[in-house]
Amino acid sequence: MQMSEMIGFIGLGNLGLPVASNLLNAGYALRVYNRTASKAEPLVAEGAQQVNRPTDAVTTGGIVVTLLWDDAALESIVSSPGFLGQLGPDGIHISMSTVMPETAKKLAAMHAQHGSAYVEAPIFGRPEAAVAKKLWIPYAGSQQAKKRVQPLLKAMGGQGIFDFGEEVGAATLVKLLGNFLLTSASYSLREALTISEKNGVNPKAVVNMLTQTLFPAPIYQSIGNMIAEKKEVNQSEIPLKDVGLLKKTAQQVESPTPISSLLHDLLRTDLE
Amino acid sequence: MQMSEMIGFIGLGNLGLPVASNLLNAGYALRVYNRTASKAEPLVAEGAQQVNRPTDAVTTGGIVVTLLWDDAALESIVSSPGFLGQLGPDGIHISMSTVMPETAKKLAAMHAQHGSAYVEAPIFGRPEAAVAKKLWIPYAGSQQAKKRVQPLLKAMGGQGIFDFGEEVGAATLVKLLGNFLLTSASYSLREALTISEKNGVNPKAVVNMLTQTLFPAPIYQSIGNMIAEKKEVNQSEIPLKDVGLLKKTAQQVESPTPISSLLHDLLRTDLE
Repeated sequence: MQMSEMIGFIGLGNLGLPVASNLLNAGYALRVYNRTASKAEPLVAEGAQQVNRPTDAVTTGGIVVTLLWDDAALESIVSSPGFLGQLGPDGIHISMSTVMPETAKKLAAMHAQHGSAYVEAPIFGRPEAAVAKKLWIPYAGSQQAKKRVQPLLKAMGGQGIFDFGEEVGAATLVKLLGNFLLTSASYSLREALTISEKNGVNPKAVVNMLTQTLFPAPIYQSIGNMIAEKKEVNQSEIPLKDVGLLKKTAQQVESPTPISSLLHDLLRTDLE
Repeated sequence: MQMSEMIGFIGLGNLGLPVASNLLNAGYALRVYNRTASKAEPLVAEGAQQVNRPTDAVTTGGIVVTLLWDDAALESIVSSPGFLGQLGPDGIHISMSTVMPETAKKLAAMHAQHGSAYVEAPIFGRPEAAVAKKLWIPYAGSQQAKKRVQPLLKAMGGQGIFDFGEEVGAATLVKLLGNFLLTSASYSLREALTISEKNGVNPKAVVNMLTQTLFPAPIYQSIGNMIAEKKEVNQSEIPLKDVGLLKKTAQQVESPTPISSLLHDLLRTDLE
């Protein structure tokens, strides 16, 4: 690994910041861009070079990482003047945002036209997990590009990297499926523990048993404890967005969505 | 432990048989009753004594176990002539069926009137888990009765026994909540893997990643593999019954049931 390789990093949100910081700590040089420029400050203090236009973060033949809020933000970066031309032949775009598989496929085709590679590598993990280097990353794209990208994903904090083949769209779909299942588990547990409480049965005791037996999975533990301890369950807009994307993806192939549709409605109501 | 203690065992279904067999193997003497008498044959071959009426399985001051299909079956056993009188003071009824918490409470009160104890101890685990002695058992009832009952639950195959206090109803509710969460996880995974398949992404790869990362829980593993390998998912009537009981229990305390109501409808449709 060329430790001083210059990497472009676009999108310094809650997750982008710690992931970019992990790259700096692993010895990579970074050129960073964020729409709200002030967000880059902690990284600049750690030695990153801040640029004013997305395209300036791109090195011809190099690697650029994007980690953005949604399809529109990602498409606008890729379409920004000179982005694909600058990335040029042999450049690689590691796209880590959670978007529609069809968006990923469309962007992959646009990159191919310019001779560059689009590797999708969406991230499972909250910002704390990025700091702790405990991210799970499914990825897909050309074999050659994936090989070049893999050490970076590890340096970003990927404790587990899962190969979903060469066809872009698969890893993005897995991300949507995973977020749907997390939302389903979380809402089901909320429903269960509310029933428990209203029946005078201590939710803590219920969570304690279930997470030791049927559900030894982090989501049941964390949501269970939050509810049992009456902490506010974090009302992020991510589940609403991602369950919506999954529903849309499923409906395009006429796959039934009874549970994702219900969750989408519940999420919408909860955010109102 | 008095190894030759005579235990009554009523209900020799798919789960009752291996659980009763575990008791015999642990050195207990059994008097067994089942509505369809022929089901008792394997236990009789192992040394159990078969009786023709539920009450004949009951020893005054002793322990009788019931493991029946539903509330009606359980109530009819308890109401059968002489049952409570025969159990008498100091007798204990270990009730392992999955029923409504209100049924458990009502029966507990009837036992108290006769000076006997009702311990609810519903079982989490399939027949294979009973054979492997890997059952999870939540239980509730008087402290004294639970103390006497605990070695029996272990001998039945309980690898983990969870105390839900003295008030009957709590352990029965936990069983309903657990079965609801299992059903929710299973139907959500089915929905996810169908979407995956219709998008040309191999469900096996999806299950492989998810069960190694976000969902290292047996239900995701077993349902995931069944679906990924296109085996018929076992259409038992148990989830329909139990989600129905949970929904009814929740509605009695006006607790919302968006997910359990949907699952109840889906289960009904699947069994039609």
